[in-house]
Amino acid sequence: MVKVPDHQVAGHKADNGRLGPLVDDSGRFYKPLQGDERGANEVSFYTSFSSNTKIPDHITRFFPKFDGTQLVKASDGSGMQPHLVLQDLTFDRVNLSIMDIKIGSRTWPPHAPEDYVQKCLKKDRATSSLPLGFRVSGVRIFESSKVGYWEPKNKSSIQTLSADEGKLLLKNFISSNASEETQMKLDCAFASTVYGGSTVVMMFEKELASCGKSPRAEIKFVDFAHVHEGKGVIDHNFLGGLCSFIKFISEILTTPDDCAVDSLVDDAQRNHIYSDNGSF
Amino acid sequence: MVKVPDHQVAGHKADNGRLGPLVDDSGRFYKPLQGDERGANEVSFYTSFSSNTKIPDHITRFFPKFDGTQLVKASDGSGMQPHLVLQDLTFDRVNLSIMDIKIGSRTWPPHAPEDYVQKCLKKDRATSSLPLGFRVSGVRIFESSKVGYWEPKNKSSIQTLSADEGKLLLKNFISSNASEETQMKLDCAFASTVYGGSTVVMMFEKELASCGKSPRAEIKFVDFAHVHEGKGVIDHNFLGGLCSFIKFISEILTTPDDCAVDSLVDDAQRNHIYSDNGSF
Repeated sequence: MVKVPDHQVAGHKADNGRLGPLVDDSGRFYKPLQGDERGANEVSFYTSFSSNTKIPDHITRFFPKFDGTQLVKASDGSGMQPHLVLQDLTFDRVNLSIMDIKIGSRTWPPHAPEDYVQKCLKKDRATSSLPLGFRVSGVRIFESSKVGYWEPKNKSSIQTLSADEGKLLLKNFISSNASEETQMKLDCAFASTVYGGSTVVMMFEKELASCGKSPRAEIKFVDFAHVHEGKGVIDHNFLGGLCSFIKFISEILTTPDDCAVDSLVDDAQRNHIYSDNGSF
Repeated sequence: MVKVPDHQVAGHKADNGRLGPLVDDSGRFYKPLQGDERGANEVSFYTSFSSNTKIPDHITRFFPKFDGTQLVKASDGSGMQPHLVLQDLTFDRVNLSIMDIKIGSRTWPPHAPEDYVQKCLKKDRATSSLPLGFRVSGVRIFESSKVGYWEPKNKSSIQTLSADEGKLLLKNFISSNASEETQMKLDCAFASTVYGGSTVVMMFEKELASCGKSPRAEIKFVDFAHVHEGKGVIDHNFLGGLCSFIKFISEILTTPDDCAVDSLVDDAQRNHIYSDNGSF
């Protein structure tokens, strides 16, 4: 009934007898609960978030639906284990292009154990987290039915992007002629339908976009194992990194000279990027 | 002709034969040029910023005026040394309340030498920089002609503020009955004239505000020794910290229940906080 997900581009994978998330055939995603504080944090976040009726729809739609926890046969053969039951965001999607971005220049919480702080700090300094305020932790770009998907040869190549490389990857993501050759002129054909749509997305169906149908572009926030109550302070680290990421996206939309956008972004869409209705 | 400034609340001071900034009696502020890359950075920033005619007035007014560099007799007796010539922001001010806030959860630039990184990181973690995204590095609050100024007993007490303590200090800053006793009900009497005025300020003349005159409230950005060209990336660390700081200010303006504000902040002023015309 449950199986290893097809579209997972980052995080622990449930193949080769390892522990990882599973999906079923009705659109559910089962995430193994981490045994320590992180698992408790994540359950606590989803429980509180999903039961809070004051949170408006334009915020909740950026999060996967939550359906409690459930004992599921773990993928590592360790028997029945508690899993978070979430919406499978990739369910029923065809030839999906997907990107996973870790937001923030600092990936360690203030009161983490010292060895965890040092491990994260080292990685933040070695990747694009520190200079760009975010790092790409996984990506898969659908090129065509003939060629199939493009995936990076190794993880570190996408984690250590410079500003220019980051922009190039984001352009490739939404181009009909995606290519690894940097000399090639990317057409950014889907810029307005993907980045400029009702939600900026890191997930869309390129073939649907090509034939003029809705590419069902979406962005969601996931992974709340390190969430803590702010106690009057906003998450300035996340916020700063998100603003940096939005700037990369908005530059692709607002500088048509830079790549041949087939449908120019109009002012309404540009303004939409900065609107406060929950989308970018 | 030059003398030690009266109103300096943070940074190296030019007293007791040490090197520090000086002022003259015509409104000029002389900042000793740091001999290394930092001095060169700061000259380069001010030169480029002040000569860029594309920067609109609503941005430039948040910065001190720049008048080049000049050889001035250094305060440490080392003879004539190059100084930045800037506008003396406190010139001609009476009974000035002033606060100096270092913005950002990280005070080290990505490519700084390792020992400098470690020194800053240690301090960021030990102070409010990491949790709040900013730290107060100096403050002086004018209480009354009789009592004079309130200053913190030691620097670390203001650098290690919790969220609640930070809010309390900001309320004290704009209250006519400023007091160290936390039980006392602060009146936040000048909230709307200071924080809600045409610019949010960390500097104002309380006595003028008390008698209904303009307290000449102002906020300025200073200290650009660590500024580097962003090369396509915004300063997400600064931006995140600034947003956190703005949230503290805006909560004082928008939660009148929380302290007895004598003139309620109207909606226009609230919206003004988030307007994009260069003020908060």
